[in-house]
Amino acid sequence: MTVSEPSFARALAEAAARTERMLEACLPVPDGTPGEAELAAAMRYAVLGGGKRLRAFLALEVARLFGADGAGAGRAAAAVECLHAYSLIHDDLPCMDDDDLRRGKPTVHRAWDEATAVLAGDALQTLAFEILADAATHPDPAVRARLVLRLAQASGHAGMVGGQAIDLAAGKAAGPLGAAQVKRLQALKTGALIEFAAEAGAIVAQAADADLSAIRAYARALGEAFQIADDLLDLTGSEAEVGKRLRKDAGAGKATFVDILGPGGARARAAELVAEAEARLAPYGPAAEVLIQAARFVVERRS
Amino acid sequence: MTVSEPSFARALAEAAARTERMLEACLPVPDGTPGEAELAAAMRYAVLGGGKRLRAFLALEVARLFGADGAGAGRAAAAVECLHAYSLIHDDLPCMDDDDLRRGKPTVHRAWDEATAVLAGDALQTLAFEILADAATHPDPAVRARLVLRLAQASGHAGMVGGQAIDLAAGKAAGPLGAAQVKRLQALKTGALIEFAAEAGAIVAQAADADLSAIRAYARALGEAFQIADDLLDLTGSEAEVGKRLRKDAGAGKATFVDILGPGGARARAAELVAEAEARLAPYGPAAEVLIQAARFVVERRS
Repeated sequence: MTVSEPSFARALAEAAARTERMLEACLPVPDGTPGEAELAAAMRYAVLGGGKRLRAFLALEVARLFGADGAGAGRAAAAVECLHAYSLIHDDLPCMDDDDLRRGKPTVHRAWDEATAVLAGDALQTLAFEILADAATHPDPAVRARLVLRLAQASGHAGMVGGQAIDLAAGKAAGPLGAAQVKRLQALKTGALIEFAAEAGAIVAQAADADLSAIRAYARALGEAFQIADDLLDLTGSEAEVGKRLRKDAGAGKATFVDILGPGGARARAAELVAEAEARLAPYGPAAEVLIQAARFVVERRS
Repeated sequence: MTVSEPSFARALAEAAARTERMLEACLPVPDGTPGEAELAAAMRYAVLGGGKRLRAFLALEVARLFGADGAGAGRAAAAVECLHAYSLIHDDLPCMDDDDLRRGKPTVHRAWDEATAVLAGDALQTLAFEILADAATHPDPAVRARLVLRLAQASGHAGMVGGQAIDLAAGKAAGPLGAAQVKRLQALKTGALIEFAAEAGAIVAQAADADLSAIRAYARALGEAFQIADDLLDLTGSEAEVGKRLRKDAGAGKATFVDILGPGGARARAAELVAEAEARLAPYGPAAEVLIQAARFVVERRS
């Protein structure tokens, strides 16, 4: 990871550590029962000790910006990471992207088997909603119900899963996707959950509607920049650093932002998006500086 | 279906028709977008036009018993059916039970492919939580958050998915499960969602805690009776009537209630459970008669 901004690096590391502790508290512990033990172990393996925790960072840092620093933001962050981990387990399955490596470790279906991977993903999705709906997340049930509703909208057929379905169809189509289709695919497949992560922090803090709109616009720009950087990494990164198989999109005939804009055009578009993210947070002054650094980080990272 | 009780038969048919309409209103409609169209079509195929809708009936009828007859009970019923349909799609996958037939039709991975089946199941789980968290389900967000929490508890690692994981492990174990293990497996795998269905009706109606306890105990007895009847049908039913592959448990070396108790003992235990379900509802008098008939029905059914 290349991080030019020390305060962001510290905030990201702190968010990761805090999220890890919260996930530890929320995840089931394997007992001796055959079946349940493997399920719990696979869930933990997929969620704990891995990833940059960018989504958790966004939830925690946005909550902090609007004055919420208690357990609720941490629980929302943990829920987003559970949802994200479920999507990675299922995306890696042989019938989907068929990947053997994730975050530098064997994928769940390689470490266990396909059935355990399907079930661990299923149970992590459920756990995300269980965490959000629990009274420990917020004393006001309206906040909890809103978190659940928005996560469901971001991650279901009109969000993340819909994006994955478009992606699968693109891999089988005669020609590559056009620019508008790639943008829509990515907005659903990865953008929606990144946007929800930031929004969740604002919901937990009971921020005003205008603040929620600003945060969503910031996160939308950051999410698109993140994806462009991912496409650039896919082209130029090393598998050892990135920790997963690269350059598979080219083989599958899927178009990426880089295919459409070229590497130079993609870099220029990413810079535009960072500027857009900064502009959305400008009204919040220095308190939003770490979130602005995060937008810069997503395009500079090397893994 | 053999139904000796005309008012139950009518109530079940009405619940099925009402749930079908509600599901129609909640499910995505396939548009022309490649990928999204197949996803929406597979979701609809798996949920619409099939099944007895026993879970939906329980939610609707319990809500009615406690005075709730509006859209909320119908939405809770639809959410339970989406959750149930997701579990069937994933259970039928080649890496799980590998079934080609469900409700007399090709399973989703046979009608489409495995990737679409994984995603349609994923999105149906999400949709269940989205339906419950939406303000249309109940004006009080505490009711919505409680529905979400209880569904998550019933269907996740400590509920339905946990039961499926035990079931998978049992298929690979050296010997069959004992009586206590079979009871626990079934309580998690099928009992927890049946119990939630009934409880959801009581939650929507904002029933008192004592009523919630009575309803849960009734539904627990009904759920176990349902499973015993399933095991007996598996032994004696015809595949044409039941609409799915039968007698696969014997081949997989898994123990069932019938293996443990024998057919006569299993029938006697089912009768005990029906009596238990009746006793729990006795205090509610004639208003609970249709629910009592439902408990009798689950052990008398032929499909």
